[in-house]
Amino acid sequence: MSNFVAPFSAGSAEDRELLGGKGANLAEMTRLGLPVPSGFTINTRACRRYYDEGRQLWPELLTEIRQAVAELEARTGKQFNSSDNPLLVSVRSGAPVSMPGMMDTILNLGLNDTTAEALARVTGDRRFALDCYRRFIQMFGDVVMGIPHHDFENELSKLKQKAGAVDDTQLGAEHLAELVKTYKDIVLRQTRKPFPEEPMEQLKMAVQAVFDSWNNNRAIVYRRINKIPEHYGTAVNVQEMVFGNAGDDSGTGVLFTRNPSTGEKVLYGEFLLNAQGEDVVAGIRTPNPIAELERLMPDAWRQINEICALLENHYRDMQDIEFTIEKGKLFILQTRAGKRTARAAVKIAVDMVAEGLIDKKTALLRVDAAQLDSLLHRQVAPEARLDIIATGLPASPGAACGKIVFDADEAERLGAQGEKIILVRPETTPDDIHGIVEAVGILTSRGGMTSHAAVVARGMGKPCVCGCEALKIDLKAETVEVGDLVLKKGDEISIDGATGRVIRGQVPLIEPVLSPEFNTLLQWADEVRTLGIRANADTPEDARRAREFGAEGIGLCRTEHMFMATDRLPIVQEMILADTQEQRKAALARLLPIQQEDFYGIFKAMAGMPVTVRLLDPPLHEFLPSAEKLAVEVALLEAGHGDADKLDETRRLLRRVRNLQEANPMLGNRGCRLGLLYPEIYLMQVEAILNAAVQLLEEGVEVKAEIMIPLVSHSNELERMRALVSETRDRIARETGRALDVLIGTMIELPRACVTADEIAQHADFFSFGTNDLTQTTFGFSRDDAEGKFLPAYLAEKLLPDNPFAVLDRQGVGKLMEIAVNLARGKKSNLKIGICGEHGGEPSSIQFCHSLKMDYVSCSPYRVPVARLAAAQAALK
Amino acid sequence: MSNFVAPFSAGSAEDRELLGGKGANLAEMTRLGLPVPSGFTINTRACRRYYDEGRQLWPELLTEIRQAVAELEARTGKQFNSSDNPLLVSVRSGAPVSMPGMMDTILNLGLNDTTAEALARVTGDRRFALDCYRRFIQMFGDVVMGIPHHDFENELSKLKQKAGAVDDTQLGAEHLAELVKTYKDIVLRQTRKPFPEEPMEQLKMAVQAVFDSWNNNRAIVYRRINKIPEHYGTAVNVQEMVFGNAGDDSGTGVLFTRNPSTGEKVLYGEFLLNAQGEDVVAGIRTPNPIAELERLMPDAWRQINEICALLENHYRDMQDIEFTIEKGKLFILQTRAGKRTARAAVKIAVDMVAEGLIDKKTALLRVDAAQLDSLLHRQVAPEARLDIIATGLPASPGAACGKIVFDADEAERLGAQGEKIILVRPETTPDDIHGIVEAVGILTSRGGMTSHAAVVARGMGKPCVCGCEALKIDLKAETVEVGDLVLKKGDEISIDGATGRVIRGQVPLIEPVLSPEFNTLLQWADEVRTLGIRANADTPEDARRAREFGAEGIGLCRTEHMFMATDRLPIVQEMILADTQEQRKAALARLLPIQQEDFYGIFKAMAGMPVTVRLLDPPLHEFLPSAEKLAVEVALLEAGHGDADKLDETRRLLRRVRNLQEANPMLGNRGCRLGLLYPEIYLMQVEAILNAAVQLLEEGVEVKAEIMIPLVSHSNELERMRALVSETRDRIARETGRALDVLIGTMIELPRACVTADEIAQHADFFSFGTNDLTQTTFGFSRDDAEGKFLPAYLAEKLLPDNPFAVLDRQGVGKLMEIAVNLARGKKSNLKIGICGEHGGEPSSIQFCHSLKMDYVSCSPYRVPVARLAAAQAALK
Repeated sequence: MSNFVAPFSAGSAEDRELLGGKGANLAEMTRLGLPVPSGFTINTRACRRYYDEGRQLWPELLTEIRQAVAELEARTGKQFNSSDNPLLVSVRSGAPVSMPGMMDTILNLGLNDTTAEALARVTGDRRFALDCYRRFIQMFGDVVMGIPHHDFENELSKLKQKAGAVDDTQLGAEHLAELVKTYKDIVLRQTRKPFPEEPMEQLKMAVQAVFDSWNNNRAIVYRRINKIPEHYGTAVNVQEMVFGNAGDDSGTGVLFTRNPSTGEKVLYGEFLLNAQGEDVVAGIRTPNPIAELERLMPDAWRQINEICALLENHYRDMQDIEFTIEKGKLFILQTRAGKRTARAAVKIAVDMVAEGLIDKKTALLRVDAAQLDSLLHRQVAPEARLDIIATGLPASPGAACGKIVFDADEAERLGAQGEKIILVRPETTPDDIHGIVEAVGILTSRGGMTSHAAVVARGMGKPCVCGCEALKIDLKAETVEVGDLVLKKGDEISIDGATGRVIRGQVPLIEPVLSPEFNTLLQWADEVRTLGIRANADTPEDARRAREFGAEGIGLCRTEHMFMATDRLPIVQEMILADTQEQRKAALARLLPIQQEDFYGIFKAMAGMPVTVRLLDPPLHEFLPSAEKLAVEVALLEAGHGDADKLDETRRLLRRVRNLQEANPMLGNRGCRLGLLYPEIYLMQVEAILNAAVQLLEEGVEVKAEIMIPLVSHSNELERMRALVSETRDRIARETGRALDVLIGTMIELPRACVTADEIAQHADFFSFGTNDLTQTTFGFSRDDAEGKFLPAYLAEKLLPDNPFAVLDRQGVGKLMEIAVNLARGKKSNLKIGICGEHGGEPSSIQFCHSLKMDYVSCSPYRVPVARLAAAQAALK
Repeated sequence: MSNFVAPFSAGSAEDRELLGGKGANLAEMTRLGLPVPSGFTINTRACRRYYDEGRQLWPELLTEIRQAVAELEARTGKQFNSSDNPLLVSVRSGAPVSMPGMMDTILNLGLNDTTAEALARVTGDRRFALDCYRRFIQMFGDVVMGIPHHDFENELSKLKQKAGAVDDTQLGAEHLAELVKTYKDIVLRQTRKPFPEEPMEQLKMAVQAVFDSWNNNRAIVYRRINKIPEHYGTAVNVQEMVFGNAGDDSGTGVLFTRNPSTGEKVLYGEFLLNAQGEDVVAGIRTPNPIAELERLMPDAWRQINEICALLENHYRDMQDIEFTIEKGKLFILQTRAGKRTARAAVKIAVDMVAEGLIDKKTALLRVDAAQLDSLLHRQVAPEARLDIIATGLPASPGAACGKIVFDADEAERLGAQGEKIILVRPETTPDDIHGIVEAVGILTSRGGMTSHAAVVARGMGKPCVCGCEALKIDLKAETVEVGDLVLKKGDEISIDGATGRVIRGQVPLIEPVLSPEFNTLLQWADEVRTLGIRANADTPEDARRAREFGAEGIGLCRTEHMFMATDRLPIVQEMILADTQEQRKAALARLLPIQQEDFYGIFKAMAGMPVTVRLLDPPLHEFLPSAEKLAVEVALLEAGHGDADKLDETRRLLRRVRNLQEANPMLGNRGCRLGLLYPEIYLMQVEAILNAAVQLLEEGVEVKAEIMIPLVSHSNELERMRALVSETRDRIARETGRALDVLIGTMIELPRACVTADEIAQHADFFSFGTNDLTQTTFGFSRDDAEGKFLPAYLAEKLLPDNPFAVLDRQGVGKLMEIAVNLARGKKSNLKIGICGEHGGEPSSIQFCHSLKMDYVSCSPYRVPVARLAAAQAALK
């Protein structure tokens, strides 16, 4: 009995690897003296031996199983195959790690013609006994013998038709007796063997089926994805059946020890009188709320409350419990940690610390940081009835309702007038920014989780659903078709960026709940984390929001969005199209006070905290109309269409745009390359930053500006740019008599910067990893192209474990980061190192940054709470 | 005398670092007993001390100089400032490493009013003495006192005007006396001090000027570029003047101990009787060939021959010698290793081995591998008169003459008819390939050394001049303007791809000379090199040529050019535009036999040698017309221009092209990503390769095919592709009963592949570094954009030492390669590793590959000899 099989009473929760999760919990509850139906577990060692034996049950195991059954018979006073008091058992798989995809459960094993009649007698309900019997044959035939489920269902349908029954319940005992016969015929016909009548034979076949299911395709794929070792194997749990349908003093139910939605400390669940578990699932009768049990079965209610308290105390976590009451007697069939919403997770964790059940460390580790995100955005009311017309990618969380608008200009105009607008586009480009700013939500039919729309929306904390390919958008007609439905401009629509749902009409929304518990948890997180948390913010509003969420500075303030605003773009274009340096300088002179105002606002909002400003990064042609558009205009003008006077000007513009056009803009003339070719642009930005700082210093506001040079590949570039910035700083300090506390650093976003980080560090006060671009160049993936073209296939085919733009690729990109950190710190041990790519807000990536001993992560304002918790968890792990 | 100053007789050639190159050679010749005018060297240690002293000549040094002068006076019997027999000296700088940019030479130092008269008496030529004097003042005033050269020249011009003289020689002694006075006035006016009359004062000032010139801007920049240590310092050589213009028994000349153009072992040079060195340079009289000296001065001739033999024997290299004969007495003023053409270098090195002067190792190291390239191409005849109309970048060596054609189709048509065509384009694209194939040379007005035209032309060994911005090309009018000149289609033009010259009309060309010495040297190279040498070749012709040049295999056979040929492109387009997989497969079935024929030819040409075939690499839209072109067509068709029936079809094509269009094609859907998304394309190629191999095996020809998967970033990609290839191989082997010797490997061309090379190696039989793409992704430089936009500025501003697409960037790209080699060999010690980027033919990059212990380099067929020599040099260094 000691090698492969043991009764529940012999194990404990510690034996999870040997007994599987389910078996270990049943053993633990048995050990605690809880009313668990008797049974035994065939352990995972047996499963491994089963495969070694060439998928055979070997004599020694069969002997142990027979002994365990005999012991169970002795304990329960029931016998396999008894015509008086038959022993029926459930057979369940249970691996060390919960694993969907394997065979789950066979109920009522032990039934045959003899024991079915006996069950009818014992329960006094022949119909029920026969219904159990035909269900057992169907379940066993399907999962153990491999007979298609629908072959049985077809016969059931025929029978119902013949009997004029609409519902299963309308079939009487005689009908079911006939069905049992028909089912047995199916088994005989398809397997050329009669249905096994012998309970011991049934049990052997069931055990083999469970073991075999460990290696079915779904299970193998699941293990590969979730990195579960092949060698674990699964256990098999064999347990005496108890019946919640043995009369009005019986019942069955499911409950959580606390409310899994809100976290409130009350029992939460439902039950059915005189029913079995399956009936609850089938939804034939409406279950009662668990609290009603107090009135109906006060003893059982009291006992359940005691057991729940005991289990919570024992496991020190909220439990999800299955129970059955048979003739007034309570049985617990399963307990496990209960799944819960983010809101509940936070409240339960904080409450349990107050109750003395767990310590703060455990509380911090118990909340899934990634899940927190949903708490920071509006959500669709859970009880709302929804007319879901399509589902896209959940690109930026939060829900929004508004009127459909197809054009960014119109979105801006109507949004500014206070209308709630959903901007609907095939995809967005930087030209649409002003429209996105004024919209309440973005919906696109193309593009992935890191498309322009997605990235910008997440940055702004605005709901976005993208890549919703079911939408056929006609920009000319200003309509969007989904199947037969045609929506027009101005129609009401709702989107849920957390799930990707697109919903017709207005839906009720609920506001984000920033509970006191939430703040408590984050304060605990701040106590233990060593990583600093900053936010990526381009405007004073974003900066204020980031600060509210707990950011300790700005890690990335992009300056290109400032150039995109409609009042500025014409000046920017003038600057770019200038024929002479004088003209360019004149345009820059007009931009200077505007930029200065931008920085003034952000520095003021972040008074006393560091603000990292990245100088202009994107290629200049992003600010100009496309060459294709202009080429079409020129061709049409040449063919005599439109205003002939415009031809020369349009041609000139086309020539200029072509001049700036690039084969691969991502790898083209951008970042510090612009700063080196047109130093006057960077100079203007540096002056704007420093002037703003001086202005605030004079108002008594502390400013900690950090100027960041993008896209450095060689230390010479940073050396040159550093000279430009520090000369300007020294000049302005001299002119104003103000000491300017300005750090000068660089993005590390190219592989060459990583492997020459020691050289680059010599000219830098800080590094900030730009992991978006670093991922692009390390993989050779253009994000725009990859997301739209091959990346979906790569993920579907498991060529990559994750989208590397969402979850940092530790093996490749991470390796380069490690090289960079080691080289740089080797040269300059106190170098400040952070990350400002989108990965800065993703928990597993944050853990990696912590392991590299980086100083801070920077992420979108709305991810700051997530990052605070993830950083704490990284410190605790 | 021992610290800072020593006579020539005290040093030797070993003391180069202390005495500078010039000083050490003068000392060595003195030591050898050669007739060198006496003198002394102020050493580099003095120069360093000079800077330590705050740019002052300190007493100890002055004492040493005075003693050295006294000793020189004693040795020569002449005195500073003597009115009888004045000592005149030359003062020359001489650093340990030859360094243009520093002060060079002051002649005739020691002249003043007194000594000039004495010189007149001694030489019996007052005019000459005064001419020396005024030249000395001018030279001294310019380089020592910093008075602009043209201030003196202006006075000379005025004087000539006044005297009615056209030429300097028409000025008499009195004129020159007047000029001396005027020059002294200039010095007084500009420096507020009289011209220093005292020779010792002149010498001190000259020494200071030489020391100062070590740190002038040009010298600093030159040192930084050439990595010459700052601390070296320069020496100063002070030497007694001798006069080749002391009568008809005097003369001066320059000679090489062998012909520096052909390498022939005869004295080569020229001389002038009764003249000084300057006269030779000034070109007033035509010098005589050196051989005439035999007749004119048989004693000197015999002595020169003896000295030349002695110096060659001593230095074991061809020498470049300056000599002066004063009144029948021969003086040697300088000797140094002579510069020579590639052809001469090869012949001299091989001859000297035969003569027992040097060993093979020395011979191999003495030829500049990069220079060899010029020997493998046609050249413009050296004596030809040329009408050079512009100069562009020397993009692909060789010279060609032909008729101007502006269109690839027309170039193809005329070229096929046997016309010699120069294809002239603003820039070329893959669409122009068929035209490039049929042209004898390519000329573009845009694009750099690694533009499409340059890369393709080098690959084909075809002359190319690109980035010739002086050309204004009008494709519509079919004209090219250069300044006032307008050339039309059909006009004759010549280009020299080795120098970048564009020449009007036909010029005489000389065929490449592959001398016996050249082959001997390469055979020696093959004996010592450990690196294998392969070629990049896409056609049987290229393969044959590569083999002739000594390639041991094909390291890169690209398959995309095969897709571009005009007879195939329509099928390729059909394949790409297919709506269904069936249509695509049908098109592929038609491509299969064509590809098979391609591979058959290449394998046959390389019988017995390995051939690495890279599966399709470029993004598919490269095979389609551009979206812009189509958008214009659609717009015009919509506006009622052209054939309305075509509208739907053109719209469909545009949609399809847009679908395939990418933001950054370099990082888009290409390489193995295509193979994973459209396995049928790769499958067709693999079948074509294997069918061709089987066909040849049946003909008894040995085939060593290597199939290379491009653009792998993750080991999963290679694992998947390897399965596809090996399944096909096994199937074909089964079907044909032939054992197929096929290796499967990958390009390493992405940073991620480098840092995960251990994982990737597990699925690879070989690696080949694709350093073109690896350089692009490591730097984040798109080659096309960088070369046209910022790279020229980067190189001009010394932000980068070299164009990283020409010379491998060891610090960054090389670091990643090193990581990859170490990781891969750690996992699989016998993994074959090569390189097939353009760097594979560049000597310093080849040296780096050798140092990484790679197995082979692969380069364009025309660079194979270069690579063979460079590999040998790497092994020897």
